[in-house]
Amino acid sequence: MKIIHILCYGLGPIGLGIARLLSQRSDMQIVGAVDIDPAKKGRDLGELCGEPASGVIVSNDVAALAARPDVVLHATSSALTKVAPQLESLASAGFNVISTCEELAYPWAPQPDLAASLDRVARANQVTLLGTGVNPGYAMDALPLFLTAPCAQVRAVRVTRVVDAAQRRGPLQQKVGAGLSVEAFAERAKEGSVRHVGLHESLHMLAGSLRWQLDEIDYQIEPVVAQQEIVTPYVQVQPGQAAGVRQVIIGRRGGHEALRLELQMYVGAPDPRDEVEIDGDPPIHMRVQGGIHGDIATAAIVVNAIPTILRANPGLATMMDIGVVHWSNG
Amino acid sequence: MKIIHILCYGLGPIGLGIARLLSQRSDMQIVGAVDIDPAKKGRDLGELCGEPASGVIVSNDVAALAARPDVVLHATSSALTKVAPQLESLASAGFNVISTCEELAYPWAPQPDLAASLDRVARANQVTLLGTGVNPGYAMDALPLFLTAPCAQVRAVRVTRVVDAAQRRGPLQQKVGAGLSVEAFAERAKEGSVRHVGLHESLHMLAGSLRWQLDEIDYQIEPVVAQQEIVTPYVQVQPGQAAGVRQVIIGRRGGHEALRLELQMYVGAPDPRDEVEIDGDPPIHMRVQGGIHGDIATAAIVVNAIPTILRANPGLATMMDIGVVHWSNG
Repeated sequence: MKIIHILCYGLGPIGLGIARLLSQRSDMQIVGAVDIDPAKKGRDLGELCGEPASGVIVSNDVAALAARPDVVLHATSSALTKVAPQLESLASAGFNVISTCEELAYPWAPQPDLAASLDRVARANQVTLLGTGVNPGYAMDALPLFLTAPCAQVRAVRVTRVVDAAQRRGPLQQKVGAGLSVEAFAERAKEGSVRHVGLHESLHMLAGSLRWQLDEIDYQIEPVVAQQEIVTPYVQVQPGQAAGVRQVIIGRRGGHEALRLELQMYVGAPDPRDEVEIDGDPPIHMRVQGGIHGDIATAAIVVNAIPTILRANPGLATMMDIGVVHWSNG
Repeated sequence: MKIIHILCYGLGPIGLGIARLLSQRSDMQIVGAVDIDPAKKGRDLGELCGEPASGVIVSNDVAALAARPDVVLHATSSALTKVAPQLESLASAGFNVISTCEELAYPWAPQPDLAASLDRVARANQVTLLGTGVNPGYAMDALPLFLTAPCAQVRAVRVTRVVDAAQRRGPLQQKVGAGLSVEAFAERAKEGSVRHVGLHESLHMLAGSLRWQLDEIDYQIEPVVAQQEIVTPYVQVQPGQAAGVRQVIIGRRGGHEALRLELQMYVGAPDPRDEVEIDGDPPIHMRVQGGIHGDIATAAIVVNAIPTILRANPGLATMMDIGVVHWSNG
């Protein structure tokens, strides 16, 4: 079996999670690591991961790398405008890229010009660009879409993801606004620092794939207010404070609620789950009990997508365009 | 939008179900229909479907057709050795083929030489061959595999499909042996006329995709014996008679039960469902409540795979190799 050579680009929590997964695989090898953080430059990637030295020294300049990776795993930012120059330069160098950039999961509707430009660069260089992760990229879009495969007709798709943030890492509990006053939550939500990024991408990926033209999109973000005190190792939430966030996006066609995606992420959420209800022929009602645990899942889905992207057609791809991503022994 | 031209090959219950679905779509058009049954030759396909005349006249000779379909939907037999010459001749004519032949869903392990030969012919003619259906092809293989996408590690996969045959068409109730004595059931099971075809294919698709070498495969088929009388519009089952079939296939690696697929199809089955349990990091426990209703689902999945196969690489493909199949408005 040919060893797949990987460049890790972006060494924040997700990037290091990806590197840790890769270090356990014998079919893949990290041949380079890049981060802009000066404090990481020159350090051994294994040590940054809390593992034995790997011999891979972190650089802050892709152009200076001697290695020619088969795939770049990119985890720097959620904002496509920020990462697009990085992606273009990687594609121009002839590298396939899998990115955790949420806005890359389905940029075709929200940012069509940028998507077309990335697609052109990827095709010209015969490489594939893919944005993925557990959400967006899987739980609220690709998986619900695959669940329509046995349907002769689909009238509506409702997706509900409930995450008990208390079971997740500290930064997520802060990201969802746990422990904020309702006023502070509203402010943070307004400036965009409290929220999950990707609900619009998931909605557009569903609508685009189902070939539904939406007449109207409604989006809401609000705090889930704690009814009682909730204490985790990371936050203390008093009654009346925000326990986390609830985001709902609805897509309507002909006055009809065709798509409804609801995401609840808060500490103490009962009955965490991923649920998909398809109003179709036949109807489909799916539940992942306990939900898909996101912390490790995003790193895993990126690594699992590697063999699939290597067989994919060149261009800017979504999870629907490449083969079915799955775990494999390696 | 370019209209996709379709040839319907094989006009049994599944083939006619496919033709009925196609007649509802404006993005696809049936340009030919073929069946070996002399009673169907010369008849109008719409009329065979119980619909208004379509102008498509059933032929029993593919070679005589003037139309050049983009995709052939093939539904003739479960046995790959029987259908391979049909598939080779369709591929040689330059047609993409989606077939409901159960043994085509994953022929690589059970029939590697035949698979390699079909793959060669497809590549040489720049077309794609795909075997699919709700089972095999989806419920017990492709869907469970997609559920491993968020996993960093997988140790075992268990799939349980429970079908209440009383809610299904008459031929299925007979196919599962409802109403047979236990002795007659054993005889029919031995000769292969009472069973679901495809459990081996699903097991091999899982093992091959997960890259698990299996040391041992155990397969069992047995009747589910009725405890009380069960009456449906098609059969009457007395206590002590077979209500249907239970098939289990287990794949072991290193003494460990790595894969377990269990299919129960019997009249009166309580709690029908499709259930997938992944022993992995994270663990995944999925349930489709009520199960995926198979009668319409196989026809639907074949039709839904059409846009996906048209973008796929040439060769003999499985559901894992092409993009993610999903319903789309058309």
